[in-house]
Amino acid sequence: MLEHGGRLARAAAHYGIPRDRWLDLSTGVSPHAWPVPAIPAEAWHRLPEDEDDLLDAARAYYGCEHLLPVAGTQAAIQALPRLRPRSRVGVLAPGYAEHAHAWREAGHDVTLLPMEALVARAGEFDVVVFISPNNPTGERVPGAFLQHRSRARALEQKPDWVVVDEAFGDTRADAFLQPRDGMILLRSVGKFFGMAGARAGFVAAWPGLLDALREQLGPWALSGPTRYAVARALCDTAWQDAMRRRLKQESTWLGSTLERAGLKPAGGTDLFQYCPHPDAAGLFEALARRGVLVRLFNEPSALRFGLPPDDVSHGHLASVLAEILP
Amino acid sequence: MLEHGGRLARAAAHYGIPRDRWLDLSTGVSPHAWPVPAIPAEAWHRLPEDEDDLLDAARAYYGCEHLLPVAGTQAAIQALPRLRPRSRVGVLAPGYAEHAHAWREAGHDVTLLPMEALVARAGEFDVVVFISPNNPTGERVPGAFLQHRSRARALEQKPDWVVVDEAFGDTRADAFLQPRDGMILLRSVGKFFGMAGARAGFVAAWPGLLDALREQLGPWALSGPTRYAVARALCDTAWQDAMRRRLKQESTWLGSTLERAGLKPAGGTDLFQYCPHPDAAGLFEALARRGVLVRLFNEPSALRFGLPPDDVSHGHLASVLAEILP
Repeated sequence: MLEHGGRLARAAAHYGIPRDRWLDLSTGVSPHAWPVPAIPAEAWHRLPEDEDDLLDAARAYYGCEHLLPVAGTQAAIQALPRLRPRSRVGVLAPGYAEHAHAWREAGHDVTLLPMEALVARAGEFDVVVFISPNNPTGERVPGAFLQHRSRARALEQKPDWVVVDEAFGDTRADAFLQPRDGMILLRSVGKFFGMAGARAGFVAAWPGLLDALREQLGPWALSGPTRYAVARALCDTAWQDAMRRRLKQESTWLGSTLERAGLKPAGGTDLFQYCPHPDAAGLFEALARRGVLVRLFNEPSALRFGLPPDDVSHGHLASVLAEILP
Repeated sequence: MLEHGGRLARAAAHYGIPRDRWLDLSTGVSPHAWPVPAIPAEAWHRLPEDEDDLLDAARAYYGCEHLLPVAGTQAAIQALPRLRPRSRVGVLAPGYAEHAHAWREAGHDVTLLPMEALVARAGEFDVVVFISPNNPTGERVPGAFLQHRSRARALEQKPDWVVVDEAFGDTRADAFLQPRDGMILLRSVGKFFGMAGARAGFVAAWPGLLDALREQLGPWALSGPTRYAVARALCDTAWQDAMRRRLKQESTWLGSTLERAGLKPAGGTDLFQYCPHPDAAGLFEALARRGVLVRLFNEPSALRFGLPPDDVSHGHLASVLAEILP
């Protein structure tokens, strides 16, 4: 398992700054969480039932029919490699590292490639794995590739599976891909809805794949309270529309602030900005000493900034950046 | 996957009785749920962290050090068989059917045996799986077997693993087993605390096994709200003590009612009573037509009755039994 969680706790201990004094921009989770209402006692008490209103809500939200609720994208990332015999797998890099880790752990032959090379060499692999928009770079899988690939697959050409992790796709609702033959799409409720604690996501794919995945993951993958809360969040289109506008404004503002400080983003989404910099490690350290936690990437050397939760913290980020990048 | 859930919904449709008119005694989940307080917004918002107070609460409650939180006993039942090469596995029967199913699905050679035979022939297997107290019979794994087995294992004799599912063990707090070499104990928060919707349980075993299981299950197995609620439930010793007394009284009362109706229980726990009967299927049908849902077992022919939630429903059960077993 890759190292996860507790980053803020460790930073607090390492830099001697109390946890509640940090500006934590280290995640891509929206700082503006959907307001979860009180949970009915029955949702805690009874076994969760597949026949509740969660799946209908998800079908309406994602605009597709065949969906499987999973305990976060992570559950699907770990389960998919167990559904195939040893395969040649091309995985986007840099990108969310759990994909490559899970395919390797399951005994597959994994090749890491940047977007352009992965698209060009897709036919060499049994499985290709994209993250789109990519975390942390913000790149998207080219539509032309997906169309070409549909034609190629009709001739039974490789790749057999195309996995696309759309965990950060919600900020452009019309940009969700549609599952076609051999496409497996992963969606997360954690990021856009600011509900990372709920552990909820969905897989969109063909029915046979979803059956195999359900068998692998077992019954009751989501808790009753999570099913209740997520079904309501997915139906709250007024909140979703307003939040998309708000996140677009705030991410644009964050991009401007970073650019003014000399850290022009090379990419990102409406939930984070991605800033390559030759001394990213030094900047990370300087920010952390001032109580600002961001995400550091080493290959290539870059920082990822999540959205500040409010104007005050945005202003604080700007002044800290001015201090360390005068 | 075995068929699960939706039993009440299907019964409502099949018997033409609205869902809210049923007396549902078909589960072993306590009808008296621990009262979950309001969940802090942060528990929904942030990724769950292993460093919260859940594990300390569980260590105090179960009285043992090495524990892994899992998304319900079910998650452990499915994951354990994936941690071994093909093995000979003896599984208690009748008993919770997911155990045998999970070991078979993972390619192991499964033999189903009743308690006495499983104890006597344990040395023939690589793994033996008990449910103690057993669901639905209420039988417990003999202490003498576990002691003998500890000595045998010092000589590296089989079985290699002894799995004991103690999902219904909480009503006698002092009866939880202690994990010793090669013992894997499964505990559930769903039954005694009446929190089946939370999807929470724990595995007690040696550290190496827990590490392998954690790797198999991945990070964030429990949602943030579940971690918060379960940590508090496990610490609420006043509620637990009072509830153990209450469940003991109510299950004794249920046993008397069943015995007076000619259905003397052959076993059970403080959360259900187990009644073998040659025409269990006919009784199930007669109860269901009157809006009382119980659990039917075919081999051997038997019914399992959960606790009625209150005096009125207990009286209703008694009068329905008097009607169909005059």
